[in-house]
Amino acid sequence: MLPFARVTIIGLGLIGSSIARAIRAEMPTVRVTGYDLDSDVRDRAVALDFCDDVADSAGAAVVDADLVVLCVPVGATGAVGQEIAADLPPEAIVSDVGSSKAGVATALAEALPNNPVVPAHPVAGTENSGPEAGFATLFQGRWCILTPSEQTDATAIARVTAFWEKLGARVEKMDAKHHDLVLAVTSHLPHLIAYTIVGTASDLEDVTRSEVIKYSAGGFRDFTRIAASDPTMWRDVFLANKDAVLEMLQRFSEDLTALQRAIRWGDGDALFELFTRTRAVRRSIIEEGQDDERPDFGRAH
Amino acid sequence: MLPFARVTIIGLGLIGSSIARAIRAEMPTVRVTGYDLDSDVRDRAVALDFCDDVADSAGAAVVDADLVVLCVPVGATGAVGQEIAADLPPEAIVSDVGSSKAGVATALAEALPNNPVVPAHPVAGTENSGPEAGFATLFQGRWCILTPSEQTDATAIARVTAFWEKLGARVEKMDAKHHDLVLAVTSHLPHLIAYTIVGTASDLEDVTRSEVIKYSAGGFRDFTRIAASDPTMWRDVFLANKDAVLEMLQRFSEDLTALQRAIRWGDGDALFELFTRTRAVRRSIIEEGQDDERPDFGRAH
Repeated sequence: MLPFARVTIIGLGLIGSSIARAIRAEMPTVRVTGYDLDSDVRDRAVALDFCDDVADSAGAAVVDADLVVLCVPVGATGAVGQEIAADLPPEAIVSDVGSSKAGVATALAEALPNNPVVPAHPVAGTENSGPEAGFATLFQGRWCILTPSEQTDATAIARVTAFWEKLGARVEKMDAKHHDLVLAVTSHLPHLIAYTIVGTASDLEDVTRSEVIKYSAGGFRDFTRIAASDPTMWRDVFLANKDAVLEMLQRFSEDLTALQRAIRWGDGDALFELFTRTRAVRRSIIEEGQDDERPDFGRAH
Repeated sequence: MLPFARVTIIGLGLIGSSIARAIRAEMPTVRVTGYDLDSDVRDRAVALDFCDDVADSAGAAVVDADLVVLCVPVGATGAVGQEIAADLPPEAIVSDVGSSKAGVATALAEALPNNPVVPAHPVAGTENSGPEAGFATLFQGRWCILTPSEQTDATAIARVTAFWEKLGARVEKMDAKHHDLVLAVTSHLPHLIAYTIVGTASDLEDVTRSEVIKYSAGGFRDFTRIAASDPTMWRDVFLANKDAVLEMLQRFSEDLTALQRAIRWGDGDALFELFTRTRAVRRSIIEEGQDDERPDFGRAH
């Protein structure tokens, strides 16, 4: 009772190669075809052997697929949709893994008006990129958010849901615009802030780069992990989800200014009140199984 | 050839109890006396048995010490110094573990004008607090920064250096004011930002608390770890290191505003340039042994 028999993955980086590996682990009879725009990545994918077949063009990759998953930077979604349009079987379901969803839905609906489209966002990843970085258990216990439109065929949604559940994910449906607002705060703003602070620390005159590196265990090193994420992917996310990111950024800046004022005026009670409140959020995340409960994320000491 | 024979630790939380445990592991013949203002913490310390003796007062704890290490919130340093002044042997060296150093140096010099004072800051920790949270290997491979004044006796500095090296740390000497500037960027600003964003995310109207928790694996959960750190400790750090924190915060805000502008105007090149530059910082931290090189800090997947 597998939801799909022939899955094509376009884009064989961290997420695409993890999906391929997870299919092989959880649904070994499913045939997986891969394709990547970068011929070097295609060669490495062949060597790593996580697909049954690596095609030489996007069109050739999709000709007999019943599910096509686009695992490309969100800014490339529309172009890839157009590239596969002529070869895509009319009944094939198209999905993606993009971190912003309203723009992706529009781009895919325009490029592929006749195919069922079920946009998806597995909220999972690491700071590493490329086909070597993927692994089969990446989606275990993580949430995958589907953002179909109201017109999307219910069977298509049910099959994509079953697909992600087979890979170990928990699936939720959400309006695309609401998804973009939620992820702006749980993912996009954290990345933006991490990129910023790592940039700020690199540009100081009175503190050397070497000092920043040496004493990074004081907290800074945590931010560098996120700020090591794929630059193309994240550039596209911020451009695609501009409005929600700017809204969240505005709120963050206001809150930071309030804290800055509390420090300047020595208002210890305001600091203590916030610092106590934020502890509870961490506890909830651990109770929900969304982070490692070991101290320091389980880092080696 | 041990640097000290009788060490007293005032404050038996994460850091104090880790020092006690590390002494027992690395210098088992050294006698460790502990004290904590909180009688409940003293009882738990007795039960956990990481000290040879837990005293009933700060004075009684220091009477025969040759090293006293204050492991208390930095705002309490001066008061504890005054509390032990009458009972402290004149040759006993006094140190601490505070995250800001200029204020601590002044407070200790005023409270204990006749004892050698060697302020120290082990750049290590976890998000957990209390005597149960400590462990013997916390300082292995981490840096410990000493900030003695120019008048401090060289032998006292050498003995405190040897002490921290025995516990597994790498020791560096630094001017107290420079320390406070360096740590403002590698530790205090990251904590302030993490506390802020967790607060911002908790206060939204359009995104529920439950959504923030569920989709936190997109990046947000990393910030919640730091924002779960001890509220009293961190309130004191921000009040004590106000000038350097405000300076770094100002630079961060300027950089964030520039990035905000790039997003608003769709300047993808500016985003891509920064996101590429920040990757290199992560690589340096891993090469220097200051973070776990496993993806995602080695979190269980």
